[in-house]
Amino acid sequence: MAKRKQIKFGALIHGVGGNVSVWRHPEVLPDASVNFKFYTEQAQLAEKGKFDLVFIADGLYINEKSIPHFLNRFEPITILSALAAVTSNIGLVGTLSSSYSEPFTVARQFGSLDHISGGRAGWNVVTSPLEGSALNYGKPAHPTHDERYKIAEEYLEVTRGLWDSWEDDAFVRNKETGVFFDPEKLHRLDHKGTYFSVQGPLNISRSKQGHPVIFQAGSSESGKKLAAKGADAVFTGQENLEEAKQFYREVKERTVAEGRSADDIVILPGIGPIIGRTQEEAERKYEEIANLVTVDNALNYLGRFFDHHDFTRYPLDEPFPELGDLGSNSFRSGTDKIKAVAKEQNLTLRQVALQAATPRGQFVGTPEHIANLIQRWHEEEAADGFIIHSAIPSGLTDFVDLVVPILQERGLYRTEYESDTLRGNLGLPVPANRYTDSKVKV
Amino acid sequence: MAKRKQIKFGALIHGVGGNVSVWRHPEVLPDASVNFKFYTEQAQLAEKGKFDLVFIADGLYINEKSIPHFLNRFEPITILSALAAVTSNIGLVGTLSSSYSEPFTVARQFGSLDHISGGRAGWNVVTSPLEGSALNYGKPAHPTHDERYKIAEEYLEVTRGLWDSWEDDAFVRNKETGVFFDPEKLHRLDHKGTYFSVQGPLNISRSKQGHPVIFQAGSSESGKKLAAKGADAVFTGQENLEEAKQFYREVKERTVAEGRSADDIVILPGIGPIIGRTQEEAERKYEEIANLVTVDNALNYLGRFFDHHDFTRYPLDEPFPELGDLGSNSFRSGTDKIKAVAKEQNLTLRQVALQAATPRGQFVGTPEHIANLIQRWHEEEAADGFIIHSAIPSGLTDFVDLVVPILQERGLYRTEYESDTLRGNLGLPVPANRYTDSKVKV
Ligand SMILES: Cc1cc2nc3c(=O)[nH]c(=O)nc-3n(C[C@H](O)[C@H](O)[C@H](O)COP(=O)(O)O)c2cc1C
Ligand SMILES: Cc1cc2nc3c(=O)[nH]c(=O)nc-3n(C[C@H](O)[C@H](O)[C@H](O)COP(=O)(O)O)c2cc1C
Repeated sequence: MAKRKQIKFGALIHGVGGNVSVWRHPEVLPDASVNFKFYTEQAQLAEKGKFDLVFIADGLYINEKSIPHFLNRFEPITILSALAAVTSNIGLVGTLSSSYSEPFTVARQFGSLDHISGGRAGWNVVTSPLEGSALNYGKPAHPTHDERYKIAEEYLEVTRGLWDSWEDDAFVRNKETGVFFDPEKLHRLDHKGTYFSVQGPLNISRSKQGHPVIFQAGSSESGKKLAAKGADAVFTGQENLEEAKQFYREVKERTVAEGRSADDIVILPGIGPIIGRTQEEAERKYEEIANLVTVDNALNYLGRFFDHHDFTRYPLDEPFPELGDLGSNSFRSGTDKIKAVAKEQNLTLRQVALQAATPRGQFVGTPEHIANLIQRWHEEEAADGFIIHSAIPSGLTDFVDLVVPILQERGLYRTEYESDTLRGNLGLPVPANRYTDSKVKV
Repeated sequence: MAKRKQIKFGALIHGVGGNVSVWRHPEVLPDASVNFKFYTEQAQLAEKGKFDLVFIADGLYINEKSIPHFLNRFEPITILSALAAVTSNIGLVGTLSSSYSEPFTVARQFGSLDHISGGRAGWNVVTSPLEGSALNYGKPAHPTHDERYKIAEEYLEVTRGLWDSWEDDAFVRNKETGVFFDPEKLHRLDHKGTYFSVQGPLNISRSKQGHPVIFQAGSSESGKKLAAKGADAVFTGQENLEEAKQFYREVKERTVAEGRSADDIVILPGIGPIIGRTQEEAERKYEEIANLVTVDNALNYLGRFFDHHDFTRYPLDEPFPELGDLGSNSFRSGTDKIKAVAKEQNLTLRQVALQAATPRGQFVGTPEHIANLIQRWHEEEAADGFIIHSAIPSGLTDFVDLVVPILQERGLYRTEYESDTLRGNLGLPVPANRYTDSKVKV
């Protein structure tokens, strides 16, 4: 096998934070989710730390129970395009749903972002967990979990086809002869499938990284299948080393079974490091964040994963309720896991809710401790890298200032960008243009 | 009547240019349409000239006959978001079709751009003239001209409703009490109409300009109706003073008839000034551009307005052919005009094609001459301002360096921005939030 790639890092920029109450923390800017200065500073900080990418999550439905960040936040395509102008090497990855959008528009928007940023765009293809999304898009019903993934698969085929509309040397631009492009190198997709019918060609060419980097973030059976078949990177939520190793191995094996190389897919679990000068300081920081969450907050937070189910109707200190199929058409891999862990460990509703709302994770401690864990996960093939999501802004600062230098010292992490494209930095190949390769005019 | 507003200017940034051959001009960067540095420089130049806005046009269908700029260009939402980060006062207006998009997504993207830019977003609502667009969006057919405008009207209602989801003081963000927002000030749209069914609320709040500025660019009967009813600004293509005055008067009267003030809508004809130190130099510059266009180029260009009709089948030097209804379902106001002028002036096909491909316009001459014309159009109420589209990059430079100072000298044009929002600079009111005003919780 080739020499192992160095560790990769992404930064989830997430406004006022991913849980119900962390916006109350003294450090959090209460308008962070719509504060461009905050996003700029976070992205530039991640770039200072030589991160591979920033990551913007997304959702298409809110109600009065949604957590603060979801209520009022930047839309991914716009914020990433703006960040392209204030950064120079870092990748720009955004979430966009294949269940509620049009491939022609999405291929264009990511293609355009890819040109604006000089080859730094990435697209996290999600199928949209929230059932309410259908109501905002005039759809009779939220498609089932299975169907959403079928749509996603065809969707990805279409966008990849559209991105190949122009061969890389199609634009001649010869002022003397008056030839702007070579019509032999322009290709019409003419896709007619189950869910989409898209003629093409696309009105934008490929950037120097070929296609935007495709992320996949679903961890269910169908999610893993989609990843193995067509994704360049996986954002996943594994919480412990053994689970992460198993997920890693499985996705790599499936990728190889699809005829690809194991190196062609990068697996990045999300972690939320909390860093202190001592273990005690780190624990205190965690407690400070966790203490902001009330049980009511936590029940509400938990409810969102189960189609905004009302958990206040159950007794708090009795075993986690039997929920049947609830949740399996939305965040399936997440809700399956919550149910399984509750059963295995015989947890009460209170415990489940608080764990969901204030997950502690393992990455709490001194910079050394965290660097050691990261090294171990990387060495034991639990991860190719990590998406860092910090509950509070100083989390990213501490990580860049204190953890990154240790990993650089150990030769595990870059000290300079290898490339100015996202694919280049992630060590991923530039996809061949389907038409150029086959030399068949379609 | 209140004192007349000063003249407003927009700059159409249009890559390699709006005609078939101008990309061959020595001055034009042949990759300008996908060159972010070029777009940045143009936007910053316009901002240096205290322009109100930059304008990005768009289209959703190409084929091998499309003009160079249309083949491979930035998508409006992405390029405007990027430009937001490198400018500080200038408005950012982009074209987006109401015929091939989803109001929830479009309201979010413009809402987000409006926050990123601090209240400088504008949306040019177009109905998409090109019939081929349907093929890229899996639609059985391009909706008729009438239906497209009906869709647009409902679409605008929906997006305005979504933008009002949050009252301006809805976000309390009180860390002490833990109240992030006031649920009484969150409103669900629950729109159920002919074309759209959208529940809401939107997951982004209003910016300080309330709603993005709504542009309208269709000049047909239905286009004018839409403008009078719901637009803040009109981008139009009138070529001579009398026509422009008539259009101006009509749109203002219709706006008043809809219960609005004549000052609530800003009318901006597009002009392509060509500036020389002498009239002769300007004429020479025009000839240089016009001479790049061959008759074949011109026929091809003309064809696009008529649903990519093949004009090479007609004799060149005989009267312009009888085309029946052709073109009236795409660029209706444009094709109606081409037909009428050809008939009136008894023009040959060659003449019509060359006029369409290399329109000279009146704005050719010395800076004084152009400033005089602009002043006259403004004084005689043919325009509230202009969208400047320059065939070659030095057109904008010359305009900013040579024409702008004359108008400033005369007190007709700002020397400093009055505001940091687009509405503020255009002198347009901030739309009241429908829920705040009525004090009715919906
Ligand atoms: C780490 C991680 C991040 C995710 N980020 C998003 C997101 O930003 N937006 C979204 O709609 N769904 C997101 N999802 C949800 C998934 O994309 C998917 O829709 C959902 O989990 C159901 O699919 P699954 O059962 O395959 O996991 C994320 C999932 C994971 C595991
Ligand atoms: C000055 C002007 C600019 C326009 N810009 C665009 C554009 O950028 N994209 C587009 O699809 N249509 C554009 N249009 C076309 C119109 O929006 C409209 O679809 C077409 O002209 C048919 O409508 P009408 O008959 O009402 O003019 C423009 C029209 C005018 C007059």
